[in-house]
Amino acid sequence: MRLRKVPHAEEAIRNNQTVMIHDSKERKGSWSSVFQNHHPIRLEIGCGKGKFLLELAKLHPEINFIGVEKFESVLVRAVEKAELDPPVNLRFLWIDAEELPECFGNGEIDMIYLNFSDPWPKSKQKKRRLTHPLFLMRYLSFLKPNGRILMKTDNFGLFMDSMVWFVESDWHLETISLNLHAEPHLENVETEFETRFVAMGHSIYYLSAVRPEESHA
Amino acid sequence: MRLRKVPHAEEAIRNNQTVMIHDSKERKGSWSSVFQNHHPIRLEIGCGKGKFLLELAKLHPEINFIGVEKFESVLVRAVEKAELDPPVNLRFLWIDAEELPECFGNGEIDMIYLNFSDPWPKSKQKKRRLTHPLFLMRYLSFLKPNGRILMKTDNFGLFMDSMVWFVESDWHLETISLNLHAEPHLENVETEFETRFVAMGHSIYYLSAVRPEESHA
Repeated sequence: MRLRKVPHAEEAIRNNQTVMIHDSKERKGSWSSVFQNHHPIRLEIGCGKGKFLLELAKLHPEINFIGVEKFESVLVRAVEKAELDPPVNLRFLWIDAEELPECFGNGEIDMIYLNFSDPWPKSKQKKRRLTHPLFLMRYLSFLKPNGRILMKTDNFGLFMDSMVWFVESDWHLETISLNLHAEPHLENVETEFETRFVAMGHSIYYLSAVRPEESHA
Repeated sequence: MRLRKVPHAEEAIRNNQTVMIHDSKERKGSWSSVFQNHHPIRLEIGCGKGKFLLELAKLHPEINFIGVEKFESVLVRAVEKAELDPPVNLRFLWIDAEELPECFGNGEIDMIYLNFSDPWPKSKQKKRRLTHPLFLMRYLSFLKPNGRILMKTDNFGLFMDSMVWFVESDWHLETISLNLHAEPHLENVETEFETRFVAMGHSIYYLSAVRPEESHA
């Protein structure tokens, strides 16, 4: 479901062999060979223009990062930026989040970042939210034991529903902040949206949740 | 801190020997002898006029209940109602919640109910809220391992702050409901406030939280 078709973007993404992984489903279970090390691998689902991961990848060379994005019109910006100085510990996938279980094997992912995900406010669309119980279930198939989701949003409705869904799905809420930027003790790399929202005076809601112990996958 | 002095109420409470326990601090560690059995003991802190506990005590003869209330003007109503048909598994204490650790020994309480507690909305008063981290710490000294707090409120600010405090204090959020009355699978005995608030169209927020495993008491 790719809303905006931008031919140049699609072409630029398809032609990139440096930071893009095009055969992600064939890498299932062997991502350590992509990065040529056994460092933990973290996902950002909906990485947009990539600012968050580009910063994080520089800060943490001991961790591998994968950005997942379905909209080529924003992903192309991430790819272009990454191309200027390609980080060895960062790759991008042009896929829909529903395809993730086909791309990653059991326990292969260390942590998931959900930053300013689409709030899908209409009732009928709630199943598309990346914290819907259907998605939380999907993540179990590749998130390692004690693996976490770190979520940031400025959408209060999404945040409240997400808390309920995490708890209903037996995830453990480890941290909740109703105003992330008022809590200087939490390490925080800002996304593009975040910088804009904070400048507009919005509160940023944050949570971290630990997956249930037993696999329901 | 008893706001309204009602001489008749105070007298009626002091003279009651059936459902009131006046020497609660001397019962610390030996509440099973008060009830003459070893059934689990549950507390409602801020029991008001007692409707919730009177109903619950009838529904659950296998559980002992203690209602704690600091305002004699409402507690007297609970005592009067209980006197009509005194339940063997229900007692009331006229104390301030801060005194609870002096009244109950290690692991003596099975569960705590906080129903429509005073929201103390001003910043300076937040320490008085029954879910403030200072109170959560106090409860650890008498709440048994895996013991729970069940909280209901129609005050969204109190509910949000409470969720954050439970999580910050390492309690495990087990259930969250943003509209308790829309969830028929949750057994629910209504309080006086609740019936009134629901009739007014308010949402009732509900949570259950399990105490941290290690005692910080």
